[in-house]
Amino acid sequence: MAKMEVKKKNWWVGFSCYRQPLQTMLKVPDHQVAGHQAGDGKLGPLIDDSGHFYKPLQNDGRGSHELAFYTSFSTDTRIPDHIRKFFPVFYGTRRLEASDDAKIGSRTWYPQAAEDYIIKCLKKDRETTSLELGFRISGLRVYGNKETGFWKPDKKCVLNFSIEDTRLALRKFVSSNPSSDSDIKPDCSFASTVYGGPAGILAQLLELKSWFEEQTVFHFYSCSVLMVYEKESILQGRNSGAEIKLVDFAHVIEGKGVIDHNFLGGLCSLIKLISDIVTSSA
Amino acid sequence: MAKMEVKKKNWWVGFSCYRQPLQTMLKVPDHQVAGHQAGDGKLGPLIDDSGHFYKPLQNDGRGSHELAFYTSFSTDTRIPDHIRKFFPVFYGTRRLEASDDAKIGSRTWYPQAAEDYIIKCLKKDRETTSLELGFRISGLRVYGNKETGFWKPDKKCVLNFSIEDTRLALRKFVSSNPSSDSDIKPDCSFASTVYGGPAGILAQLLELKSWFEEQTVFHFYSCSVLMVYEKESILQGRNSGAEIKLVDFAHVIEGKGVIDHNFLGGLCSLIKLISDIVTSSA
Repeated sequence: MAKMEVKKKNWWVGFSCYRQPLQTMLKVPDHQVAGHQAGDGKLGPLIDDSGHFYKPLQNDGRGSHELAFYTSFSTDTRIPDHIRKFFPVFYGTRRLEASDDAKIGSRTWYPQAAEDYIIKCLKKDRETTSLELGFRISGLRVYGNKETGFWKPDKKCVLNFSIEDTRLALRKFVSSNPSSDSDIKPDCSFASTVYGGPAGILAQLLELKSWFEEQTVFHFYSCSVLMVYEKESILQGRNSGAEIKLVDFAHVIEGKGVIDHNFLGGLCSLIKLISDIVTSSA
Repeated sequence: MAKMEVKKKNWWVGFSCYRQPLQTMLKVPDHQVAGHQAGDGKLGPLIDDSGHFYKPLQNDGRGSHELAFYTSFSTDTRIPDHIRKFFPVFYGTRRLEASDDAKIGSRTWYPQAAEDYIIKCLKKDRETTSLELGFRISGLRVYGNKETGFWKPDKKCVLNFSIEDTRLALRKFVSSNPSSDSDIKPDCSFASTVYGGPAGILAQLLELKSWFEEQTVFHFYSCSVLMVYEKESILQGRNSGAEIKLVDFAHVIEGKGVIDHNFLGGLCSLIKLISDIVTSSA
């Protein structure tokens, strides 16, 4: 969760891969906030000239699983249109200049996973807020102003967030004065515009929740909710452009007639925290 | 989950203990469907002359923890009255002749528990439907008619229930022809009366859900929902007496400002299954 400035929204693609013919001028994105990053000889995401985002396929089956999800999801007629908007379009949605990213669910592993994978995930779920809060922040990037620039705590720091840190980050996300300085209290001046209102993030999360109370098609393990808005736009008196998107589908499995109670529980927890901020800022 | 006949509703107490002065004529209850039962030299619950239910304190701290919960809960002003009705009253509510009992939550252990306890619970959560369904049936007792009598599968059988078995048990619970014979299809003839309607179990579960979306006072690990109704009453054209009660509070911990996403997720899963039955029986 984080506050960020989005000067200009570019096109962003939820998923693509290196196997495809790429356009020229691939470069490393400046604004990634979570997920697998390039470095130490590892492949990271790339962006082409037209702003399309390319995410490398992981080798251990997660990549092909994610690709399979996008393929099946994009043609699945059981997904209502008003819910489809919360998912990246396969080939061709937008690249966002900055974002934040909350991994939903108290459990990031699925029952059928391999034993060593379960143990690894469970350890991380217990070390982060996943278990207690039902979700954890995976990455964030907070823009203050020209002087302070961005606040972007490194991944290790974010994964060490306590419940209180998480609550604070959700407040900073909608403040005009985000800072790593703990003496500076976030003003939440954008809370009513970004979180609140009929088109705000809270309303979108509630719409998503209604679907999760009913849908038994997919279980979204280790899936993230990306939240963005345009600060410039608010300062100019226009629409906040607040938006949520689901991302990270490497561990989606079939629902088989049962709701995704793991995702739903975490989503409700996120909703409650955001709802508390809207209420206290009103 | 089960169907049962409740010929006459007696008084039932959610909790008491052997430390108190007991009345005379204690006896073993006939109708317990889940929980710790007497046998092999172990203490089980007892009932006194006036129908009060006495549950033995467990030795390993769970008993005192449960007692502490009842004491604190009964005086906690943050619990609204319309929610309090879903809990047993400390000393003096009713004993039910028969019941069924669903343990809610995909996880029956809490983050602060001892490592060996977590491992034990996690194993059981994975072996039962808890992990996949968000709840598991702990016990059930189904009354058919004078000829067939009760269907009460033993605890081992119930804990081996698959998702489909669970779905079936929820249908048998509201059928006039429950049977262990898999050729006999449950008729769900009481579904609209017991599950549906403004005072039905579904409405009560939804009321409980609304509270769980907001409440951050307690986290109910390893807690059960007991569901009962009076078959005789329906057959005589009167109110079904359908009721839910939360029981088993040995692992309740403080919520500390976070919702109980584990309980809520499992509750939503139970609601969805019951809702499916109401819809398909309408």
